[in-house]
Amino acid sequence: MIPKDHPRYKSLVTREMLGNAAKKGIVAMEGLTAHGRGEAFDYLLGERTTDSARLAERTAAALLRTARHPVISVNGNTAALAAREIADLQKASGALVEVNLFHRTEERVRLLEGVLRDGGADVFSGPAERLLPLSHDRAFCRREGMYTADVILVPLEDGDRAEALVGMGKTVIAIDLNPLSRTARKATLTVVDELTRALPEITQACRELAPDECSRLVASLDNHYLLQEAIREMTTRLSHVLD
Amino acid sequence: MIPKDHPRYKSLVTREMLGNAAKKGIVAMEGLTAHGRGEAFDYLLGERTTDSARLAERTAAALLRTARHPVISVNGNTAALAAREIADLQKASGALVEVNLFHRTEERVRLLEGVLRDGGADVFSGPAERLLPLSHDRAFCRREGMYTADVILVPLEDGDRAEALVGMGKTVIAIDLNPLSRTARKATLTVVDELTRALPEITQACRELAPDECSRLVASLDNHYLLQEAIREMTTRLSHVLD
Repeated sequence: MIPKDHPRYKSLVTREMLGNAAKKGIVAMEGLTAHGRGEAFDYLLGERTTDSARLAERTAAALLRTARHPVISVNGNTAALAAREIADLQKASGALVEVNLFHRTEERVRLLEGVLRDGGADVFSGPAERLLPLSHDRAFCRREGMYTADVILVPLEDGDRAEALVGMGKTVIAIDLNPLSRTARKATLTVVDELTRALPEITQACRELAPDECSRLVASLDNHYLLQEAIREMTTRLSHVLD
Repeated sequence: MIPKDHPRYKSLVTREMLGNAAKKGIVAMEGLTAHGRGEAFDYLLGERTTDSARLAERTAAALLRTARHPVISVNGNTAALAAREIADLQKASGALVEVNLFHRTEERVRLLEGVLRDGGADVFSGPAERLLPLSHDRAFCRREGMYTADVILVPLEDGDRAEALVGMGKTVIAIDLNPLSRTARKATLTVVDELTRALPEITQACRELAPDECSRLVASLDNHYLLQEAIREMTTRLSHVLD
Protein backbone atom coordinates (compact mmCIF):
# COMPACT_ATOMS: atom_id res chain seq x y z
CA MET A 1 0.00 0.00 0.00
CA ILE A 2 1.22 3.47 -0.93
CA PRO A 3 0.89 5.87 2.03
CA LYS A 4 -1.89 8.42 1.42
CA ASP A 5 0.25 11.16 2.97
CA HIS A 6 2.88 10.82 0.24
CA PRO A 7 3.09 14.12 -1.71
CA ARG A 8 3.24 12.24 -5.06
CA TYR A 9 0.37 9.90 -4.16
CA LYS A 10 -1.45 10.19 -7.53
CA SER A 11 1.70 9.59 -9.54
CA LEU A 12 2.62 6.58 -7.38
CA VAL A 13 -0.88 5.08 -7.72
CA THR A 14 -0.66 5.39 -11.54
CA ARG A 15 2.76 3.71 -11.44
CA GLU A 16 1.32 0.90 -9.30
CA MET A 17 -1.56 0.49 -11.77
CA LEU A 18 0.90 0.26 -14.69
CA GLY A 19 3.03 -2.16 -12.65
CA ASN A 20 0.01 -4.44 -12.24
CA ALA A 21 -0.71 -4.21 -15.98
CA ALA A 22 2.94 -5.19 -16.58
CA LYS A 23 2.52 -8.26 -14.35
CA LYS A 24 -0.43 -9.33 -16.54
CA GLY A 25 1.63 -8.81 -19.72
CA ILE A 26 -0.41 -5.86 -20.99
CA VAL A 27 2.36 -3.32 -20.47
CA ALA A 28 5.95 -4.12 -21.44
CA MET A 29 8.62 -3.63 -18.77
CA GLU A 30 10.15 -1.02 -21.06
CA GLY A 31 6.74 0.67 -21.24
CA LEU A 32 7.00 1.44 -17.52
CA THR A 33 10.26 3.30 -18.11
CA ALA A 34 8.78 5.13 -21.09
CA HIS A 35 5.92 6.24 -18.82
CA GLY A 36 8.44 7.67 -16.39
CA ARG A 37 10.02 9.76 -19.14
CA GLY A 38 6.59 11.17 -19.90
CA GLU A 39 5.99 11.93 -16.21
CA ALA A 40 9.14 14.06 -16.11
CA PHE A 41 8.08 16.18 -19.07
CA ASP A 42 4.53 16.47 -17.71
CA TYR A 43 6.01 17.76 -14.47
CA LEU A 44 7.81 20.46 -16.48
CA LEU A 45 4.50 21.37 -18.16
CA GLY A 46 2.85 21.82 -14.77
CA GLU A 47 0.67 18.69 -15.28
CA ARG A 48 -1.98 20.65 -17.19
CA THR A 49 -3.19 21.12 -20.75
CA THR A 50 -1.50 24.27 -22.10
CA ASP A 51 -3.11 26.62 -24.63
CA SER A 52 -0.87 25.33 -27.43
CA ALA A 53 -1.72 21.71 -26.52
CA ARG A 54 -5.42 22.57 -26.73
CA LEU A 55 -4.88 24.04 -30.21
CA ALA A 56 -3.01 20.84 -31.19
CA GLU A 57 -5.91 18.75 -29.85
CA ARG A 58 -8.47 20.69 -31.89
CA THR A 59 -6.26 20.33 -34.98
CA ALA A 60 -5.96 16.58 -34.33
CA ALA A 61 -9.75 16.36 -34.24
CA ALA A 62 -9.97 18.30 -37.52
CA LEU A 63 -7.48 15.91 -39.19
CA LEU A 64 -9.40 12.85 -37.97
CA ARG A 65 -12.76 14.31 -39.00
CA THR A 66 -11.59 15.15 -42.54
CA ALA A 67 -9.69 11.86 -43.06
CA ARG A 68 -10.74 9.28 -45.64
CA HIS A 69 -9.49 6.31 -43.59
CA PRO A 70 -8.38 7.28 -40.05
CA VAL A 71 -6.74 4.71 -37.76
CA ILE A 72 -5.89 4.87 -34.03
CA SER A 73 -2.80 2.76 -33.29
CA VAL A 74 -2.80 1.35 -29.76
CA ASN A 75 0.15 0.00 -27.76
CA GLY A 76 0.34 -1.50 -24.27
CA ASN A 77 0.59 1.71 -22.25
CA THR A 78 -2.30 3.29 -24.16
CA ALA A 79 -4.55 0.27 -23.61
CA ALA A 80 -3.68 0.11 -19.90
CA LEU A 81 -4.14 3.82 -19.25
CA ALA A 82 -6.97 4.81 -21.59
CA ALA A 83 -9.04 1.96 -23.10
CA ARG A 84 -12.30 3.81 -22.37
CA GLU A 85 -10.98 7.14 -23.74
CA ILE A 86 -9.89 5.35 -26.95
CA ALA A 87 -13.39 3.87 -27.32
CA ASP A 88 -14.95 7.32 -26.86
CA LEU A 89 -12.64 8.85 -29.47
CA GLN A 90 -13.44 6.03 -31.88
CA LYS A 91 -17.17 6.77 -31.56
CA ALA A 92 -16.64 10.51 -32.10
CA SER A 93 -14.18 10.17 -35.01
CA GLY A 94 -15.19 6.96 -36.80
CA ALA A 95 -11.57 5.78 -36.79
CA LEU A 96 -10.43 2.14 -36.87
CA VAL A 97 -8.70 0.98 -33.68
CA GLU A 98 -5.72 -1.31 -34.33
CA VAL A 99 -3.16 -2.79 -31.95
CA ASN A 100 0.49 -2.30 -32.94
CA LEU A 101 3.25 -3.39 -30.56
CA PHE A 102 6.98 -2.89 -30.22
CA HIS A 103 7.31 -5.97 -27.98
CA ARG A 104 4.96 -8.09 -30.07
CA THR A 105 3.61 -11.57 -29.42
CA GLU A 106 0.30 -12.93 -30.73
CA GLU A 107 -0.75 -13.53 -27.13
CA ARG A 108 -0.03 -9.93 -26.16
CA VAL A 109 -1.95 -8.63 -29.18
CA ARG A 110 -5.00 -10.68 -28.14
CA LEU A 111 -4.65 -9.55 -24.52
CA LEU A 112 -4.63 -5.89 -25.55
CA GLU A 113 -7.55 -6.37 -27.91
CA GLY A 114 -9.49 -7.78 -24.96
CA VAL A 115 -8.63 -4.76 -22.78
CA LEU A 116 -9.79 -2.40 -25.56
CA ARG A 117 -13.06 -4.32 -26.11
CA ASP A 118 -13.69 -4.25 -22.33
CA GLY A 119 -13.29 -0.46 -22.59
CA GLY A 120 -15.98 -0.35 -25.29
CA ALA A 121 -13.84 -0.15 -28.46
CA ASP A 122 -14.63 -1.97 -31.71
CA VAL A 123 -11.18 -3.44 -32.47
CA PHE A 124 -9.97 -4.07 -36.02
CA SER A 125 -8.09 -7.36 -35.68
CA GLY A 126 -7.14 -10.37 -37.75
CA PRO A 127 -3.84 -11.52 -39.30
CA ALA A 128 -1.07 -8.91 -39.54
CA GLU A 129 1.72 -8.77 -42.14
CA ARG A 130 5.19 -7.16 -42.27
CA LEU A 131 4.15 -4.08 -44.24
CA LEU A 132 6.04 -1.12 -42.71
CA PRO A 133 9.66 -0.34 -43.72
CA LEU A 134 11.17 -1.14 -40.30
CA SER A 135 13.34 -3.83 -38.75
CA HIS A 136 11.84 -5.69 -35.81
CA ASP A 137 8.20 -6.64 -35.22
CA ARG A 138 7.12 -3.00 -35.27
CA ALA A 139 6.80 -3.63 -39.04
CA PHE A 140 3.63 -5.70 -38.49
CA CYS A 141 0.28 -4.15 -39.35
CA ARG A 142 -2.90 -4.99 -41.24
CA ARG A 143 -3.32 -4.26 -44.97
CA GLU A 144 -6.87 -2.87 -44.61
CA GLY A 145 -5.97 -1.05 -41.40
CA MET A 146 -2.88 1.04 -40.78
CA TYR A 147 -1.27 0.21 -44.14
CA THR A 148 -4.01 1.94 -46.17
CA ALA A 149 -4.78 4.66 -43.60
CA ASP A 150 -4.35 8.31 -44.61
CA VAL A 151 -4.40 9.70 -41.04
CA ILE A 152 -2.96 7.74 -38.08
CA LEU A 153 -3.11 8.73 -34.44
CA VAL A 154 -0.14 7.22 -32.58
CA PRO A 155 -0.33 7.87 -28.83
CA LEU A 156 2.88 7.20 -26.85
CA GLU A 157 4.69 5.99 -29.95
CA ASP A 158 8.15 4.72 -30.74
CA GLY A 159 9.89 7.40 -32.83
CA ASP A 160 11.16 5.12 -35.55
CA ARG A 161 7.70 4.04 -36.54
CA ALA A 162 6.26 7.56 -36.65
CA GLU A 163 9.06 8.47 -39.08
CA ALA A 164 8.39 5.39 -41.25
CA LEU A 165 4.68 6.21 -41.43
CA VAL A 166 5.38 9.82 -42.46
CA GLY A 167 7.81 8.44 -45.07
CA MET A 168 4.92 6.41 -46.50
CA GLY A 169 3.04 9.66 -47.10
CA LYS A 170 0.67 9.36 -44.15
CA THR A 171 -0.51 12.15 -41.86
CA VAL A 172 0.76 11.16 -38.40
CA ILE A 173 -0.70 12.65 -35.21
CA ALA A 174 1.48 11.92 -32.16
CA ILE A 175 0.62 12.33 -28.50
CA ASP A 176 4.00 12.74 -26.81
CA LEU A 177 4.97 14.67 -23.68
CA ASN A 178 8.56 15.03 -24.87
CA PRO A 179 8.67 17.85 -27.44
CA LEU A 180 12.30 16.91 -28.24
CA SER A 181 11.63 13.27 -29.14
CA ARG A 182 12.01 11.99 -32.66
CA THR A 183 8.30 11.10 -32.64
CA ALA A 184 7.40 14.68 -31.72
CA ARG A 185 9.64 16.17 -34.39
CA LYS A 186 8.84 13.71 -37.19
CA ALA A 187 5.05 13.63 -36.75
CA THR A 188 2.81 15.83 -38.89
CA LEU A 189 1.13 17.08 -35.72
CA THR A 190 2.29 16.62 -32.13
CA VAL A 191 0.03 16.92 -29.10
CA VAL A 192 2.33 17.65 -26.15
CA ASP A 193 -0.05 16.63 -23.39
CA GLU A 194 -0.69 13.70 -21.05
CA LEU A 195 -2.69 10.90 -22.71
CA THR A 196 -5.74 10.84 -20.43
CA ARG A 197 -6.06 14.63 -20.65
CA ALA A 198 -5.44 14.75 -24.43
CA LEU A 199 -7.84 12.04 -25.65
CA PRO A 200 -11.03 13.52 -24.11
CA GLU A 201 -10.10 16.96 -25.52
CA ILE A 202 -9.71 15.49 -29.03
CA THR A 203 -12.98 13.56 -28.65
CA GLN A 204 -14.86 16.67 -27.52
CA ALA A 205 -13.46 18.67 -30.46
CA CYS A 206 -14.46 15.87 -32.91
CA ARG A 207 -18.05 16.32 -31.69
CA GLU A 208 -18.07 20.13 -31.74
CA LEU A 209 -16.08 21.33 -34.76
CA ALA A 210 -18.01 22.66 -37.76
CA PRO A 211 -16.69 21.65 -41.24
CA ASP A 212 -15.31 25.14 -41.98
CA GLU A 213 -13.48 25.18 -38.62
CA CYS A 214 -11.92 21.80 -39.53
CA SER A 215 -10.66 23.21 -42.84
CA ARG A 216 -9.27 26.33 -41.15
CA LEU A 217 -7.46 24.31 -38.44
CA VAL A 218 -5.93 21.90 -40.96
CA ALA A 219 -4.82 24.76 -43.24
CA SER A 220 -3.10 26.61 -40.39
CA LEU A 221 -1.30 23.59 -38.88
CA ASP A 222 2.25 24.61 -37.87
CA ASN A 223 3.90 21.85 -35.84
CA HIS A 224 7.16 23.77 -35.40
CA TYR A 225 5.19 26.52 -33.62
CA LEU A 226 3.35 23.99 -31.42
CA LEU A 227 6.62 22.33 -30.35
CA GLN A 228 8.28 25.70 -29.71
CA GLU A 229 5.36 26.72 -27.51
CA ALA A 230 5.60 23.48 -25.50
CA ILE A 231 9.33 24.01 -25.01
CA ARG A 232 8.75 27.65 -24.04
CA GLU A 233 6.27 26.52 -21.35
CA MET A 234 8.85 24.06 -19.97
CA THR A 235 11.80 26.47 -19.96
CA THR A 236 9.69 29.16 -18.29
CA ARG A 237 8.66 26.75 -15.56
CA LEU A 238 12.19 25.40 -15.10
CA SER A 239 13.79 28.81 -14.87
CA HIS A 240 11.25 30.20 -12.36
CA VAL A 241 11.39 27.28 -9.99
CA LEU A 242 14.41 28.35 -7.97
CA ASP A 243 13.84 32.12 -8.12
CA MET B 1 15.89 -8.48 -29.31
CA ILE B 2 16.21 -4.72 -29.64
CA PRO B 3 17.29 -3.73 -33.18
CA LYS B 4 20.88 -2.42 -33.21
CA ASP B 5 19.87 0.27 -35.71
CA HIS B 6 17.51 1.85 -33.21
CA PRO B 7 18.73 5.40 -32.44
CA ARG B 8 18.10 4.93 -28.69
CA TYR B 9 19.76 1.50 -28.56
CA LYS B 10 21.76 2.11 -25.34
CA SER B 11 18.77 3.50 -23.48
CA LEU B 12 16.60 0.56 -24.61
CA VAL B 13 19.23 -1.98 -23.53
CA THR B 14 19.40 -0.39 -20.05
CA ARG B 15 15.61 -0.51 -19.85
CA GLU B 16 15.66 -4.17 -20.84
CA MET B 17 18.28 -4.88 -18.17
CA LEU B 18 16.16 -3.15 -15.52
CA GLY B 19 13.11 -5.04 -16.80
CA ASN B 20 14.94 -8.32 -16.24
CA ALA B 21 15.94 -7.17 -12.73
CA ALA B 22 12.25 -6.39 -12.11
CA LYS B 23 11.24 -9.91 -13.18
CA LYS B 24 13.68 -11.26 -10.55
CA GLY B 25 12.20 -8.97 -7.89
CA ILE B 26 15.35 -6.84 -7.49
CA VAL B 27 13.77 -3.74 -9.01
CA ALA B 28 10.22 -2.70 -8.10
CA MET B 29 7.82 -2.10 -11.00
CA GLU B 30 7.60 1.50 -9.80
CA GLY B 31 11.39 1.67 -9.92
CA LEU B 32 11.23 1.23 -13.70
CA THR B 33 9.02 4.28 -13.98
CA ALA B 34 11.28 6.26 -11.67
CA HIS B 35 14.21 5.32 -13.94
CA GLY B 36 12.32 6.74 -16.90
CA ARG B 37 11.89 10.06 -15.10
CA GLY B 38 15.63 10.15 -14.59
CA GLU B 39 16.28 9.36 -18.25
CA ALA B 40 14.24 12.37 -19.32
CA PHE B 41 16.22 14.75 -17.12
CA ASP B 42 19.50 13.17 -18.24
CA TYR B 43 18.45 13.81 -21.82
CA LEU B 44 18.02 17.49 -20.92
CA LEU B 45 21.51 17.50 -19.38
CA GLY B 46 22.97 16.13 -22.61
CA GLU B 47 23.74 12.76 -20.94
CA ARG B 48 27.08 14.01 -19.60
CA THR B 49 28.63 15.11 -16.30
CA THR B 50 28.42 18.90 -16.17
CA ASP B 51 30.99 21.11 -14.43
CA SER B 52 28.62 21.82 -11.54
CA ALA B 53 27.90 18.08 -11.16
CA ARG B 54 31.66 17.41 -10.97
CA LEU B 55 31.97 20.03 -8.20
CA ALA B 56 29.05 18.34 -6.38
CA GLU B 57 30.76 14.95 -6.75
CA ARG B 58 34.02 16.27 -5.27
CA THR B 59 32.06 17.85 -2.42
CA ALA B 60 30.25 14.54 -1.83
CA ALA B 61 33.62 12.82 -1.55
CA ALA B 62 34.79 15.46 0.93
CA LEU B 63 31.69 14.94 3.10
CA LEU B 64 32.14 11.16 3.08
CA ARG B 65 35.87 11.43 3.83
CA THR B 66 35.34 13.76 6.80
CA ALA B 67 32.35 11.87 8.23
CA ARG B 68 32.46 10.08 11.59
CA HIS B 69 29.99 7.35 10.53
CA PRO B 70 29.12 7.47 6.79
CA VAL B 71 26.44 5.18 5.33
CA ILE B 72 25.49 4.44 1.71
CA SER B 73 21.77 3.61 1.47
CA VAL B 74 20.97 1.24 -1.41
CA ASN B 75 17.59 0.62 -3.05
CA GLY B 76 16.58 -1.74 -5.89
CA ASN B 77 17.51 0.45 -8.84
CA THR B 78 20.90 1.28 -7.35
CA ALA B 79 21.73 -2.39 -6.73
CA ALA B 80 20.62 -3.40 -10.23
CA LEU B 81 22.48 -0.60 -12.01
CA ALA B 82 25.61 -0.11 -9.91
CA ALA B 83 26.49 -2.89 -7.41
CA ARG B 84 30.15 -2.83 -8.47
CA GLU B 85 30.37 0.98 -8.36
CA ILE B 86 28.86 0.93 -4.84
CA ALA B 87 31.50 -1.60 -3.75
CA ASP B 88 34.28 0.59 -5.18
CA LEU B 89 32.94 3.66 -3.39
CA GLN B 90 32.71 1.71 -0.15
CA LYS B 91 36.40 0.76 -0.41
CA ALA B 92 37.45 4.36 -1.15
CA SER B 93 35.25 6.01 1.53
CA GLY B 94 35.01 3.43 4.31
CA ALA B 95 31.21 3.84 4.43
CA LEU B 96 28.74 1.20 5.60
CA VAL B 97 26.48 -0.13 2.85
CA GLU B 98 22.89 -0.70 3.98
CA VAL B 99 19.79 -1.73 2.03
CA ASN B 100 16.71 0.46 2.54
CA LEU B 101 13.61 -0.15 0.46
CA PHE B 102 10.37 1.65 -0.29
CA HIS B 103 8.69 -1.59 -1.44
CA ARG B 104 10.13 -3.66 1.38
CA THR B 105 9.93 -7.38 2.01
CA GLU B 106 12.49 -9.44 3.92
CA GLU B 107 12.97 -11.55 0.79
CA ARG B 108 13.71 -8.51 -1.34
CA VAL B 109 16.17 -7.15 1.24
CA ARG B 110 18.07 -10.48 1.15
CA LEU B 111 17.96 -10.55 -2.66
CA LEU B 112 19.49 -7.07 -2.88
CA GLU B 113 22.13 -7.86 -0.26
CA GLY B 114 23.14 -10.81 -2.48
CA VAL B 115 23.42 -8.59 -5.56
CA LEU B 116 25.59 -6.12 -3.61
CA ARG B 117 27.85 -8.89 -2.24
CA ASP B 118 28.20 -10.30 -5.77
CA GLY B 119 29.37 -6.82 -6.79
CA GLY B 120 32.05 -6.89 -4.09
CA ALA B 121 30.39 -4.86 -1.32
CA ASP B 122 30.58 -5.66 2.39
CA VAL B 123 26.92 -5.31 3.34
CA PHE B 124 25.79 -4.21 6.80
CA SER B 125 22.74 -6.38 7.41
CA GLY B 126 20.79 -7.90 10.27
CA PRO B 127 17.41 -7.08 11.85
CA ALA B 128 15.95 -3.66 11.05
CA GLU B 129 13.63 -1.59 13.23
CA ARG B 130 11.12 1.22 12.58
CA LEU B 131 13.41 4.10 13.51
CA LEU B 132 12.75 6.88 10.97
CA PRO B 133 9.81 9.32 11.40
CA LEU B 134 7.89 8.09 8.33
CA SER B 135 4.74 6.14 7.59
CA HIS B 136 5.19 2.98 5.55
CA ASP B 137 8.09 0.55 5.54
CA ARG B 138 10.51 3.29 4.51
CA ALA B 139 10.83 3.83 8.27
CA PHE B 140 12.86 0.63 8.67
CA CYS B 141 16.59 0.91 9.22
CA ARG B 142 19.29 -0.47 11.51
CA ARG B 143 20.22 1.22 14.81
CA GLU B 144 23.98 0.87 14.30
CA GLY B 145 23.69 1.76 10.59
CA MET B 146 21.66 4.57 9.11
CA TYR B 147 20.07 5.59 12.42
CA THR B 148 23.40 6.65 13.98
CA ALA B 149 25.03 7.84 10.74
CA ASP B 150 26.15 11.45 10.44
CA VAL B 151 26.51 11.45 6.63
CA ILE B 152 24.22 9.38 4.39
CA LEU B 153 24.51 8.97 0.63
CA VAL B 154 21.07 8.26 -0.85
CA PRO B 155 21.25 7.52 -4.58
CA LEU B 156 17.90 7.57 -6.46
CA GLU B 157 15.99 8.26 -3.28
CA ASP B 158 12.36 8.81 -2.38
CA GLY B 159 11.97 12.49 -1.43
CA ASP B 160 10.08 11.92 1.79
CA ARG B 161 12.88 9.94 3.32
CA ALA B 162 15.59 12.43 2.37
CA GLU B 163 13.58 15.10 4.16
CA ALA B 164 13.11 12.92 7.26
CA LEU B 165 16.84 12.21 7.45
CA VAL B 166 17.71 15.92 7.19
CA GLY B 167 15.11 16.55 9.91
CA MET B 168 17.03 14.13 12.15
CA GLY B 169 20.10 16.38 11.78
CA LYS B 170 21.95 14.20 9.29
CA THR B 171 23.99 15.36 6.32
CA VAL B 172 22.21 13.89 3.28
CA ILE B 173 23.92 13.54 -0.10
CA ALA B 174 21.43 12.78 -2.89
CA ILE B 175 22.15 11.59 -6.42
CA ASP B 176 19.11 12.73 -8.39
CA LEU B 177 18.78 13.75 -12.04
CA ASN B 178 15.71 15.85 -11.30
CA PRO B 179 16.89 19.17 -9.81
CA LEU B 180 13.27 20.06 -9.03
CA SER B 181 12.49 16.98 -6.95
CA ARG B 182 11.88 17.17 -3.23
CA THR B 183 14.91 14.94 -2.69
CA ALA B 184 17.09 17.35 -4.66
CA ARG B 185 15.80 20.38 -2.80
CA LYS B 186 15.75 18.88 0.71
CA ALA B 187 19.16 17.19 0.60
CA THR B 188 22.23 18.87 2.08
CA LEU B 189 24.05 18.24 -1.20
CA THR B 190 22.57 17.11 -4.51
CA VAL B 191 24.56 15.50 -7.29
CA VAL B 192 22.55 16.07 -10.50
CA ASP B 193 24.14 13.34 -12.60
CA GLU B 194 23.41 9.82 -13.78
CA LEU B 195 24.22 7.16 -11.17
CA THR B 196 26.84 5.16 -13.09
CA ARG B 197 28.65 8.37 -14.08
CA ALA B 198 28.39 9.93 -10.61
CA LEU B 199 29.58 7.06 -8.39
CA PRO B 200 33.00 6.56 -10.09
CA GLU B 201 33.60 10.34 -9.95
CA ILE B 202 32.89 10.37 -6.20
CA THR B 203 35.09 7.30 -5.69
CA GLN B 204 37.96 8.86 -7.63
CA ALA B 205 37.68 12.09 -5.60
CA CYS B 206 37.65 10.09 -2.32
CA ARG B 207 41.01 8.66 -3.35
CA GLU B 208 42.56 11.91 -4.52
CA LEU B 209 41.43 14.71 -2.20
CA ALA B 210 43.91 16.07 0.33
CA PRO B 211 42.52 16.86 3.84
CA ASP B 212 42.72 20.63 3.31
CA GLU B 213 40.85 20.32 0.01
CA CYS B 214 38.13 18.34 1.82
CA SER B 215 37.75 21.14 4.40
CA ARG B 216 37.61 23.81 1.69
CA LEU B 217 34.96 21.91 -0.35
CA VAL B 218 32.77 21.27 2.71
CA ALA B 219 33.04 24.92 3.83
CA SER B 220 32.02 26.25 0.42
CA LEU B 221 29.07 23.88 -0.14
CA ASP B 222 26.17 25.83 -1.70
CA ASN B 223 23.42 23.46 -2.83
CA HIS B 224 21.18 26.26 -4.11
CA TYR B 225 23.94 27.26 -6.52
CA LEU B 226 24.48 23.64 -7.65
CA LEU B 227 20.77 23.16 -8.36
CA GLN B 228 20.53 26.49 -10.19
CA GLU B 229 23.46 25.50 -12.38
CA ALA B 230 21.83 22.15 -13.23
CA ILE B 231 18.58 23.94 -14.13
CA ARG B 232 20.49 26.50 -16.18
CA GLU B 233 22.13 23.67 -18.19
CA MET B 234 18.71 22.14 -18.86
CA THR B 235 16.96 25.36 -19.86
CA THR B 236 19.83 26.28 -22.17
CA ARG B 237 19.64 22.94 -23.89
CA LEU B 238 15.84 23.01 -24.11
CA SER B 239 15.69 26.51 -25.55
CA HIS B 240 18.37 25.89 -28.20
CA VAL B 241 16.95 22.68 -29.52
CA LEU B 242 14.44 24.13 -31.96
CA ASP B 243 16.43 27.22 -33.01
